[in-house]
Amino acid sequence: MQNLEEKLARAGNPVDMLRNSQIGAYVYPVVPAEFTNWRDEQRAWRETAVLFDQSHHMAELMIEGPDTLKLLSHLGVNSFANFPVDRAKQFVPVSHSGHVIGDVILFHLAENQCLIVGRAPAINWVQFHGETGGYDVRLDRDDRSPARPMGRPVVRRRYRYQIQGPRAWAILERLNGGPLPEVRFFNMGTISIAGRPVRCLRHGMSGAPGLEIWGPYEEGEEVRAAILEAGAEFGIVPVGSRAYATNTLESGWIPSPLPAVYTGEEMKAYRQWLPADGYEATGSIGGSFVSDNIEDYYLTPYEMGYGPFVKFDHDFIGRAALEKIAGKPHRRKVTFAWNADDVARVFRSMMEPGIDNYKYIDLPLSNYASSSYDKVMKNGRTVGLSMFSGYSFNERSMLSLGTVDPDIALGEVLTLVWGEEGGGTGKTTVEAHKQVEIRVKVSPVPYARDARESYAESWRTRQAV
Amino acid sequence: MQNLEEKLARAGNPVDMLRNSQIGAYVYPVVPAEFTNWRDEQRAWRETAVLFDQSHHMAELMIEGPDTLKLLSHLGVNSFANFPVDRAKQFVPVSHSGHVIGDVILFHLAENQCLIVGRAPAINWVQFHGETGGYDVRLDRDDRSPARPMGRPVVRRRYRYQIQGPRAWAILERLNGGPLPEVRFFNMGTISIAGRPVRCLRHGMSGAPGLEIWGPYEEGEEVRAAILEAGAEFGIVPVGSRAYATNTLESGWIPSPLPAVYTGEEMKAYRQWLPADGYEATGSIGGSFVSDNIEDYYLTPYEMGYGPFVKFDHDFIGRAALEKIAGKPHRRKVTFAWNADDVARVFRSMMEPGIDNYKYIDLPLSNYASSSYDKVMKNGRTVGLSMFSGYSFNERSMLSLGTVDPDIALGEVLTLVWGEEGGGTGKTTVEAHKQVEIRVKVSPVPYARDARESYAESWRTRQAV
Repeated sequence: MQNLEEKLARAGNPVDMLRNSQIGAYVYPVVPAEFTNWRDEQRAWRETAVLFDQSHHMAELMIEGPDTLKLLSHLGVNSFANFPVDRAKQFVPVSHSGHVIGDVILFHLAENQCLIVGRAPAINWVQFHGETGGYDVRLDRDDRSPARPMGRPVVRRRYRYQIQGPRAWAILERLNGGPLPEVRFFNMGTISIAGRPVRCLRHGMSGAPGLEIWGPYEEGEEVRAAILEAGAEFGIVPVGSRAYATNTLESGWIPSPLPAVYTGEEMKAYRQWLPADGYEATGSIGGSFVSDNIEDYYLTPYEMGYGPFVKFDHDFIGRAALEKIAGKPHRRKVTFAWNADDVARVFRSMMEPGIDNYKYIDLPLSNYASSSYDKVMKNGRTVGLSMFSGYSFNERSMLSLGTVDPDIALGEVLTLVWGEEGGGTGKTTVEAHKQVEIRVKVSPVPYARDARESYAESWRTRQAV
Repeated sequence: MQNLEEKLARAGNPVDMLRNSQIGAYVYPVVPAEFTNWRDEQRAWRETAVLFDQSHHMAELMIEGPDTLKLLSHLGVNSFANFPVDRAKQFVPVSHSGHVIGDVILFHLAENQCLIVGRAPAINWVQFHGETGGYDVRLDRDDRSPARPMGRPVVRRRYRYQIQGPRAWAILERLNGGPLPEVRFFNMGTISIAGRPVRCLRHGMSGAPGLEIWGPYEEGEEVRAAILEAGAEFGIVPVGSRAYATNTLESGWIPSPLPAVYTGEEMKAYRQWLPADGYEATGSIGGSFVSDNIEDYYLTPYEMGYGPFVKFDHDFIGRAALEKIAGKPHRRKVTFAWNADDVARVFRSMMEPGIDNYKYIDLPLSNYASSSYDKVMKNGRTVGLSMFSGYSFNERSMLSLGTVDPDIALGEVLTLVWGEEGGGTGKTTVEAHKQVEIRVKVSPVPYARDARESYAESWRTRQAV
């Protein structure tokens, strides 16, 4: 098998292929599981400050040359009307059918030089067009670190850190030796760390300002040490691999939609370009939502919360499809707050040989596939999808991110089906288990406890099933 | 601070020092968290076969020279009366007071050549005497791999694997290309893997024969690949770092007694030799058992289940102390089976902001210190210690290993206090929490479900507290 298209031809239904992938867990590599413990690491981003090490879990593609912005503008739903150097954006390419392929952070580093950073699918798509579309660009790719280095050295082009949390700005000013320049959200600047100028992106979590910084990989240890030293008195905590990805449960970004690349004649050349051992060919779908039609797993930018990014001020792949649905009602992104008793019941099911166990809920991150799709039901009808789940010690709750039909209101209590049918698929991450229904409350994105508590009554209005 | 003795002098009470250590979790390094998922990895050692990668979590000390056995005999409670080349034993050194310092596997590799493999405390003790005791020996130490390599290369002297489980022998014969020589338990031999002669130790788990093998580290990947290929049709599963250490919950070895080195004038020279940043100086004590006297954390070989190893056929450090207590009643090693409802209550406590959380029970390995000491009570009196805890998917139960007073019977239901007093110590692995009482049933070592089920009635004879 040479490429994804050939692999699909042999596999038959792509749903079966992806739901039974043998790739294993989608891990956050190289970074230790815990520096302190994942509960306190989560607490730190809410109460003090954290250092996220994002050097390893993402792929990067540097794009240089006169056609850099032309290439990107042709692929993104985003407007490029006002995108000067030193600005960044969340870049969203879609398929010809108008479905999300992925999303990445796009850094406009210099005239005719952009860097995109994120999961493989969007990066592969840009690379494909950059290599085959006749653009005058040079590409330099740096793939995500291996999931299982087994003691072998791992070297990347760049280190990439974030300093976040309510004390982050005080730490950054301490590092800088004085006040930081006023930089607006998603604009770039320069900060001094250990006497060295370091490029930074203004970022933030839960309203508190923070920075993402990057530089040559070989300087990473020295920069990390300087940050931790300056941050010690402010309670900074480095975050390990177990806690890291759960921060998005509180902030509301869904990292893992299935890339909409498996169907469509216009996408065929791309599938022939994609390797048979890449993300799209080996990645996995997990969860209770099952459809024979792989297209039922695709999402539009509107469903993912990217509606505001879609601008018809330029031509881009997928524009025609999106124009057709732009004004219509869409599913929308929500947080699901899981019922405490129902979650405890899953753990209780593991504690006795006499009863069958439900699918293990790994804490704090509970996904068991590259892309998670659990069905969310109302009166026996699927009205939404749960797509990224885990536990927040800050909220003392299991939370998941997903989508619901337009007519579902905040505060409604729906039923999430946890686990896979028939004892589970053949994925290596799936032990034999039974499915279980878990009550979930439809809650805002980003999740706020206020919202949840104001709907507390509704737990009592709907019985367990 | 130059050494442990100086560190202790500054710290005041060693109990406070160790209970508030900042070292973090005692991890199983380098090996990935999961290859498939930890539930199925546990299941495989009971039902099919597993590959344990033990190359990284232990220190090794090679001892060579004419005084090799003289040195070891002077330190071990074990007899050396019948210990030819190609035999191994579980070697247990004790302090002058007769308390366990640690235990290691001792391999008699060749005339005047022995290798010891295990946790640092016993290895440090042998190295100290080898370097300072006037013995004619050469020592070569290979320390355990770093807990957080952060992408830096890790290289050891030797790879070290075990192939275990009911199908292990069939896999080994397949690898060997024919029947294996009859080798008795803890005797050594040679097997052929990928056309290469490989040294092996006859081992076993739950009655099924298995082998431990080792060789030059640089050959480890090739040997691993050959084992996994030969084992595929027998259902072999490589075991990750999350499942690995839980295998001892079913087999009954306690890996982590506190080394009895912090007190005693006769141990002072050793404490001055031990570094201020080594295992003994930085390790941690976790759990609900608190005593101002560090000696209350020491255990005798009898309490650890090593009574049968103690032979007064030779002179050894600690002999006089052990002779005094040899015939007396001792606490004995047991398995504690944790009450399912009480365990579920701990998880439930994490799911609601309104109630305080109990100490998180990490699955499948729940220790949060180098040495765990939870008190086990009967009618308000401490009658035992729980010293290593975690979850067995095979038994569908939380289990822990520990000791109980001589008058405690199998089947009795006692109360384990889970968590630390006053909201928790200052260890980095400890989030703020409340203590909780968990009912535990005193069960055999090794644990067998048969035994547990025959005592099932007793859950109902003792109420939750």
